[in-house]
Amino acid sequence: MTDENLHVLLRARPSPEVTASLFEPVAAPIPAVADGQFLVRVVWLSLDPAMRGWIAEAANYSTPVPLGAPMTGFTVGEVVESRHTGFPVGTIVQGRQGWRRYAVSDGSDIDRVVDPGLAPISTALSVLGLNGATAYVGLVEICDPKPGETVLVSTAAGAVGSMVGQIAKALGCRSVGITGGPDKVLACLDEFGFDAAIDYKATPDLGQALDAACPDGIDCFFDNVGAEQFDRALERINVGARIAICGTIGMPSFPLPVGPRPNRQLLIKRARMQGFLILDHYDRYAAIIARLTELYRAGHFRWREDVTDGLENAPAALVRLLAGHNSGKALVRVGADP
Amino acid sequence: MTDENLHVLLRARPSPEVTASLFEPVAAPIPAVADGQFLVRVVWLSLDPAMRGWIAEAANYSTPVPLGAPMTGFTVGEVVESRHTGFPVGTIVQGRQGWRRYAVSDGSDIDRVVDPGLAPISTALSVLGLNGATAYVGLVEICDPKPGETVLVSTAAGAVGSMVGQIAKALGCRSVGITGGPDKVLACLDEFGFDAAIDYKATPDLGQALDAACPDGIDCFFDNVGAEQFDRALERINVGARIAICGTIGMPSFPLPVGPRPNRQLLIKRARMQGFLILDHYDRYAAIIARLTELYRAGHFRWREDVTDGLENAPAALVRLLAGHNSGKALVRVGADP
Repeated sequence: MTDENLHVLLRARPSPEVTASLFEPVAAPIPAVADGQFLVRVVWLSLDPAMRGWIAEAANYSTPVPLGAPMTGFTVGEVVESRHTGFPVGTIVQGRQGWRRYAVSDGSDIDRVVDPGLAPISTALSVLGLNGATAYVGLVEICDPKPGETVLVSTAAGAVGSMVGQIAKALGCRSVGITGGPDKVLACLDEFGFDAAIDYKATPDLGQALDAACPDGIDCFFDNVGAEQFDRALERINVGARIAICGTIGMPSFPLPVGPRPNRQLLIKRARMQGFLILDHYDRYAAIIARLTELYRAGHFRWREDVTDGLENAPAALVRLLAGHNSGKALVRVGADP
Repeated sequence: MTDENLHVLLRARPSPEVTASLFEPVAAPIPAVADGQFLVRVVWLSLDPAMRGWIAEAANYSTPVPLGAPMTGFTVGEVVESRHTGFPVGTIVQGRQGWRRYAVSDGSDIDRVVDPGLAPISTALSVLGLNGATAYVGLVEICDPKPGETVLVSTAAGAVGSMVGQIAKALGCRSVGITGGPDKVLACLDEFGFDAAIDYKATPDLGQALDAACPDGIDCFFDNVGAEQFDRALERINVGARIAICGTIGMPSFPLPVGPRPNRQLLIKRARMQGFLILDHYDRYAAIIARLTELYRAGHFRWREDVTDGLENAPAALVRLLAGHNSGKALVRVGADP
C-alpha cells in the first residue's frame, strides 16, 4: 500500500478527439475521515466507452465532468479506515470513487458491497457489475429474446458485448457477434460461445456476412456502434424485431452524422428501437446483480480483462479503449489486491 | 340502386408516382350467390395513404395487389341478397370488398357488422373504423401517454391524425398537430380541439414553431410523415419519449432517403421508436372498436369527410389524397345510402 494519494484531473474537453493530454495526474493528500465516513483505497478502476460522453461539452445524459475535477469512474476498493458502522475496515466496495487512489466516502457513492469469496473482485466492474447489468437490461428487459431467436450484438468481444452473447446463449438463443480483428473473432467463438462472429474489418461485404451468420434473420439487435453496422443489421431484421441502442461508438458526436432513414423499415417490420442507460435502472441494481450471480454460479460466464498498471496511465488506456485496441474489459490496477 | 356492377382494376405499378392511369374501370357481371354466401352492395369505399404501399412492387408488409385484379380497399355496404344465416338481407357490413360495386362474400372478408343507429355508417371507415383503431393502438398502446404529457402528431387534420389528437385530449394530454395549410390548421384548432397546430408549409422554421407549441418538450410523437417533420420533432423529445411510426408519407419509398441518424438522440433521451401496423392487431379489433365507441358516445369525436362521388372516380381521388389535397377522411360514395 502506497502512502501517497494521486488524483487524475480533467483539464480540457475533447476537440473532438479524446487524448491523454486532456488529463493531468496530480499529487493530493490522503483525506481525513470524519464521523459517518470511511476511507476507500481504490484497487480497480473501470474504463468505459461512455467516458467519451461524460467529458464532452455537448448536452448529454449527464452533467459533464467539471474541468479541474478528478475524472469520474467506477471503482472497486477496500475500506482501510472507518468511522461508519456499515462499512468496517476490510469491506470490499464497488463505488464511484473516480480516478483517485484514496477517496473518503459516506456510503452515498457506493453501489454495493462485494463478496471476495464469490469471484475475483474485479468482476464487480465487469460480468457482475455495470457491464453485466447493461447487457442484462438491454438484452433481457428491452429485447426480451425468446429461445431459438437470433440475437446480434456489435462490439461482441467487448465487456458488454461478450456478456450479451453469453446471456443470449443462456436463454437458448442463437448469438451472433460483430467485432474487429481475428483475435476478437476467436475470443467470441472460443471464449464467449458465440454461434458466429464477423470481423467487420476483414469482411468486404458486411451484409453478405450477416446473411450467412443469420440465416433466419435478426430478431434482437444489441447495438453499441451505430453507422454502417447498424444499417446492415437493420436491413435484415425480422417482423417484430427489437433493437436496443446501448452505444454509438462508431458514430461521431458532432456533426450529427447522416445515414439511411430507419423509419420505413421499422414500420414495415413493426420493429422497435429503444435507447437505454443503465443508470436509469439503478433502483433495481441489486436484483439485476443477483440474477447475474445466479447465471455466473451456473457457469455461463467467461471474461477477459485488459489491465493497465498504475492510475497515472489511465488516460492513455482510455484513449486505447476508445480506439478499440483493448482486448476484454479495460481495467486500471490502481493498487494491490487486498 | 344501379343494376350494373363495376370493378376498378390495377393495371400497372407506380413508377414511382401513383397516377390515375394505373387503374382501369371495367364493367363486370353481378356475381351469383351460392349457399353460405351473400351479396354486398358497396355504399362507401375508404381511400387510405397505405394504398401507395399496397400497389408497389417493392417488398412491403403485404403481398402487392396483383395486376389485373380489382384494387383492394375497405368498404361499408349493405347485404342485398343472402344465403348465409349470419348476414341476412339489410345487414350493414364493414369489410374488404375492394373497388367493386357488388361483391359476393362468405363472411371471411367482413370485419364487422355496423349498427346504423349509432352513427352514420361511413364512420365505420373512419372514427369507428380502421383510422380510429390505428390512432388508438399507436397512441394508447404504443405511446401510452400520461395525463399532462405533450402528444405531437403529424398529418394532424387527417383521418388518423385528427383521431390521435382527440384521443389525446380525452386522456388529458396537451395535443399539438402538424398539418399543411391554413384550412387544416383551423380544422385542428376548431374542430379537433388541438391545443396548438402548426402549418408546416407556412412556417419558415419548423423547429421554432415546435418550441413555441411544445414548451415542455415532446413526450409522445405519433408520426405519419417522416423526413424533416420527424427530424425537428426528434430534436425536441423528452427523456423517456415514445415515438409511434404509423406512416412515412413524407419520404420517398425509393431510393432509401438519408437523414440525420436518430441513434444517439434515442440513446441520450432513453427514447423508443416503434413501427406498427393496425392489421397486426386485428385479433383485438372488436375490443378496440368497443373502446372507441365509448369515447364516441361520450362526445369526444368530431370528424370531416372528403367525399368523391362514383367508384369510377376513385383513382383520381386516391391521387388527390396522396398529394395531401383532401380535407378530412377520403371516401368514395359508391352507391346510395341504404
